[in-house]
This record gives sequence, C-alpha cells and structure tokens, in this order.
Amino acid sequence: MSETSTYDVVGIGNALVDVLSHEDDAFLEGHDLTKGSMTLIEDDRVRELYEAMGQRTEMSGGSAANTLVGLASFGGRAAYIGRVHDDDLGTVFAHDLAGLEVHFDSPRATDGPATGRCLIVVTPDAQRTMNTYLGASSLLGPEHVDLDVVRASKVTFLEGYLFDRDAAKEAYRVATEAAHAAGRDVALSLSDGFCVDRHRDDFLALIDGGVDILFANTDEITRLYEVDDFDDAVAKVRGRCKVACLTKGRHGSVVIAGDETHVIAPHEVPKRVDTTGAGDLYAAGFLYGYTQGMSLDRCGSLGSMAAAAVIGHTGARPGLSLAQLVDLLDS
Amino acid sequence: MSETSTYDVVGIGNALVDVLSHEDDAFLEGHDLTKGSMTLIEDDRVRELYEAMGQRTEMSGGSAANTLVGLASFGGRAAYIGRVHDDDLGTVFAHDLAGLEVHFDSPRATDGPATGRCLIVVTPDAQRTMNTYLGASSLLGPEHVDLDVVRASKVTFLEGYLFDRDAAKEAYRVATEAAHAAGRDVALSLSDGFCVDRHRDDFLALIDGGVDILFANTDEITRLYEVDDFDDAVAKVRGRCKVACLTKGRHGSVVIAGDETHVIAPHEVPKRVDTTGAGDLYAAGFLYGYTQGMSLDRCGSLGSMAAAAVIGHTGARPGLSLAQLVDLLDS
Repeated sequence: MSETSTYDVVGIGNALVDVLSHEDDAFLEGHDLTKGSMTLIEDDRVRELYEAMGQRTEMSGGSAANTLVGLASFGGRAAYIGRVHDDDLGTVFAHDLAGLEVHFDSPRATDGPATGRCLIVVTPDAQRTMNTYLGASSLLGPEHVDLDVVRASKVTFLEGYLFDRDAAKEAYRVATEAAHAAGRDVALSLSDGFCVDRHRDDFLALIDGGVDILFANTDEITRLYEVDDFDDAVAKVRGRCKVACLTKGRHGSVVIAGDETHVIAPHEVPKRVDTTGAGDLYAAGFLYGYTQGMSLDRCGSLGSMAAAAVIGHTGARPGLSLAQLVDLLDS
Repeated sequence: MSETSTYDVVGIGNALVDVLSHEDDAFLEGHDLTKGSMTLIEDDRVRELYEAMGQRTEMSGGSAANTLVGLASFGGRAAYIGRVHDDDLGTVFAHDLAGLEVHFDSPRATDGPATGRCLIVVTPDAQRTMNTYLGASSLLGPEHVDLDVVRASKVTFLEGYLFDRDAAKEAYRVATEAAHAAGRDVALSLSDGFCVDRHRDDFLALIDGGVDILFANTDEITRLYEVDDFDDAVAKVRGRCKVACLTKGRHGSVVIAGDETHVIAPHEVPKRVDTTGAGDLYAAGFLYGYTQGMSLDRCGSLGSMAAAAVIGHTGARPGLSLAQLVDLLDS
C-alpha cells in the first residue's frame, strides 16, 4: 500500500435492488410463496411478483454493495463496480449509492435483462420471504471492470457469488491481477455455503494464491475444507492467506494471521431483530480498520460493532435508530 | 394519563419539506444569497430557487415533525398534524413520515399555496444557507386539527412558530382544550428567540395555564422573562408549569419540576458536525421517556443522547452512521 490511493476499498459483486413490501399471508398463498424461503426466479415470474407487490420500498442492495455502504458509513472512501440495466431500478441503484457516498459509475446495459432485484415480502409475523432475480447483475464480465478504480483502491473486495458464472469469474481474475500488479490487497467473501460446495476447488486454489484477506463464517469455512470442526478449519486455513476473518455468529470471530490468532468478542446485541447483512457489515468494519492501518484486534472489534448495529434492526443497512443507540450505550 | 392511548405524542406544527442540494459559491452569488443566513421567502422566489437547485434531496422536515420522527426512532408511538398541499412535495412529506412510522393523515389542501419547504443550499465549506417558504403549512387552522388524535395521545406537542398566525393560534387553543379535557398533557417548544419577542405576552399567559411541559433554550427563556441571567429565568419559570426543560447547548440541560431541579449532563459528542435539530431531538428523547413513565433524570438523559446523535452528523434526522456509533461507544 505504498502508492497514493483514491479509494480505501472497491467492491465487485452482483448489483441488486432490494424491493420490500409488507403483505398478508394470503399474498404468499396467492403467489405460491413459501414463507421464509430464498428462491432464485426468472423473467416472467419477477415481473408478475414485482407488479403484485403493494407500496414498495426500493434501495440498493447486494452483498458487496452492503459492505461498501457500511465502509462509507464509517467514513471510509468507497467505490463499487457492478452491472445494472439502464432502467428505473438501475437509476434507483445508482442514486442510492451516490446518496450513501459510494462511488459508482459502471456503465449501464442498454440491452439484455432488466436490473437485478431481490423481492422481499414481509408478513405481519416479521418473516421475510425473498425472491431474487439476478437479471443484468449476472452479466458482469471482465470488460466491465474499471481497472483504474481497482488500481486506485487499497483493497479490492470480491463476492464469492461471482464464481457462479464464467464471465464474472474472469472479471474476478482480471481485477485480482490488476490489484496485485499495483501492490494492492484482494479480499474475498465466501458468501454462502452452497456457493462454496459448487466451487470448492476454485476457491481452494485462489486462497493459496490470489486472496490476501478471506472472510468466511463457520458454515462456509468448514464446508470449504470438508471438516466437521471449526478448529480443524482454522488449522487448514492458517498460512494460506495473509489474514483470515472467521465469523461465528453470536460467538464472535477469530482473525488468523500467520502464527497469530486474535479472538474477537462479539459486541453485545440487546435485541437480535434481523441478522441479514451481519456478515457484510462485519467485513465493512474490518476493512475500514484495516485500510486505516489499525491493529487486527481493533479491526475485528469494528467488525463486531458494525454487525451488532445491523442485527439490531430490520434490513442490511447500517443506519441506526435512537432506540438502538440507547440499547448499545446502556449495554 | 389514565385512559388508554393510541399515541404517545402528537405534534402540531409547520409542515415543511427539507430540500437540500450541494452548490458552489457562485450559485449563492448568482442568486443573491448570503451564506449561512436563514430567510423567509415568498411565492416567485421559491419557484426560481427550487428550480435552480441541482440534484435535490427531499425529506419531511419542520421542527415538531423532527421531534416526532425522533420519538418514533426511540420506539414511541408518534402522530403528526400539519397542512400540506396536494402536490408532489405534499406526497414526499406524507410518504416520508409514513416510512419513519409517524402517523400522518391530515387532509391536503387542494387550493391555495404549494407545500411549504425549506431550501437548503450546502456549499463546499459545509455551510448551510436556508430559505424557507411556509406555503400551505401556514394555513393550518382549528378546522384541520383532528381532535380524536389529540384525545388519543398522552401528550400534545406544539411549536411556538404556530403563534405567528391567528388561525394557527386558534388551532393551538382548540387542541389544548381537547387535550386537557381528556386528561392529557400539553407540551410547548418556544422554537426561536425572535418568535418569543413577537409573542411574549401570549406565551407568558399560556405557560401559566395551558402548558404542562415547556421546552426552551437559554436564549428563548431569558428573552421570555426579559432577564440577562439563566438562573433568574429558572427562578421565574419555577412553579409556572408542571415541568420546564431548559437546554443550555454544550452545557447540558436543567429540568425544573416544582421544587425539584434536575441537572442533566450533556452526552459526550466527539464531533459537533451540525447542531440543526438538536433542540427538536432533545424534546423527542425527553418526551419518549416521559410517556414511558421514566424518572425525570432519565428523560433528560435520553434527550441528551438524542441531541448528541443529531449533532454528530449533518441534518436534523436521527439516523446514525457507524462512525458516530463508534465515537459514542468509545467516548
């Protein structure tokens, strides 16, 4: 990190708009939705569901984008690269990130599928039923990665979800090479246990060469090394990358760096309202501290605070209510 | 407060939309604006300035509305009464309050002036130049006060600004009578030192009879009693209303109730970014605690926390960034 940087972190991932509405149980039945499920849906289905949803709240989403929004909320310099279509939701995505002070100027697609979205139906029992349409986001390829932004960022942060398509995997490779050639770090989040199962060999090869900072939760890291026990996974990952941040839900996290093991306490959460985004925000806090040159203990502890903030309310965004503030100050 | 209530607090005030844009100094010169000033503007001027402003952020504002948004952010049950026009900014106002969980169903005006707005131009030096057009908000009259909502609220909270027009003053009187007849409390914020000068006799008469909880800062309370010293003002107000909350900026606040004097420490604020809304949010915290039956010390301390939260960022809204959270947890 010797050269001057324009950004602390640039994220690359699936650019999705979160579309949320409150509906009754009859809505789920009427549209054959299983409460609490997460489903990937296609073209016709997304149009039908989107139009059926009542008063909709729309904001930029997607795992890596949530991390960058969190980084900006800490005061870090954030950028994002992803693919949206030149439609209304593409505008929502871009305006929303701009308002949250995340630099985003990826050109928008003028043909092909619409902007990707995650349709979130919230029922009166506070359950969330999610239907994700990847749309334009899944067409990200190497030609869409602004390498000047990558070179100008201390860390390039990548979603594991990118591995689900060859073009995105190639975008990943190109970004990683440019970052390393510029003396920068590359960070990877494994994203999801099923994603790890699908791409285990690729991920294992990468972690040995192309990843400096790894983020994974217990489920992901044990699946990656096909072991039952968290400590066995720790033994396997040690020495493979510069830093591995392994999160353990309400049991905090462990940061592995060479021979060092930093045990990070979870931040007290008086009310666990919704854990969506906790992993994304942990990465935000850690990377903020890391790019400011803080100690690994402090980086982990900022990750815990950010995760606690997002667990205390509904949704994956870092804005805190006054009720949360009082709870956190009192605890 | 014996009967069941639907709301903890209903606020009545000037319903304004805050319209904010970032402009350079040449914009101020080009439109004859004095940096840092607050100006009341009329019809033609508001249209010209509004259209000249670049990418605009629009959200519900107004002093009492900010207090009710803060109350809702604490988890309190909030309602608001005010006058907007049936135009785009009226829709912004209503949707925004709904999203922040403040009940608002005042019918919108279909003739007369447009929805009131506060045009806020932010220059690169972070200074705010404000131009307020009262528009429809100033036409609030007694016929627009939903007395069922007033009777169903533990506290009716009123802005001093209402005293600038006879119809609004009459709305104030009608609301106060209905609240007291239902065994509820009435709270008043003096709003502004100039406003106090304009209506000193009215305010003095009211505080002796119609106000249970008074909010005022040092400037307002010393002007009200035409004294130089804060302690002299305290001596004057004691016994006049049930509770007087006197805020002293960075020196905290004093809560006077009968013979009792509660000195409330300010909450540590690592960075004073923008004090706009600090008084509104102090009232939010105090009234939240009050309507939950907490001790006056705790009510004051919740007021201090809410004020600290809003001073730590730009604007009058309670949402906190992660940077603020870390600062507040560390301090």
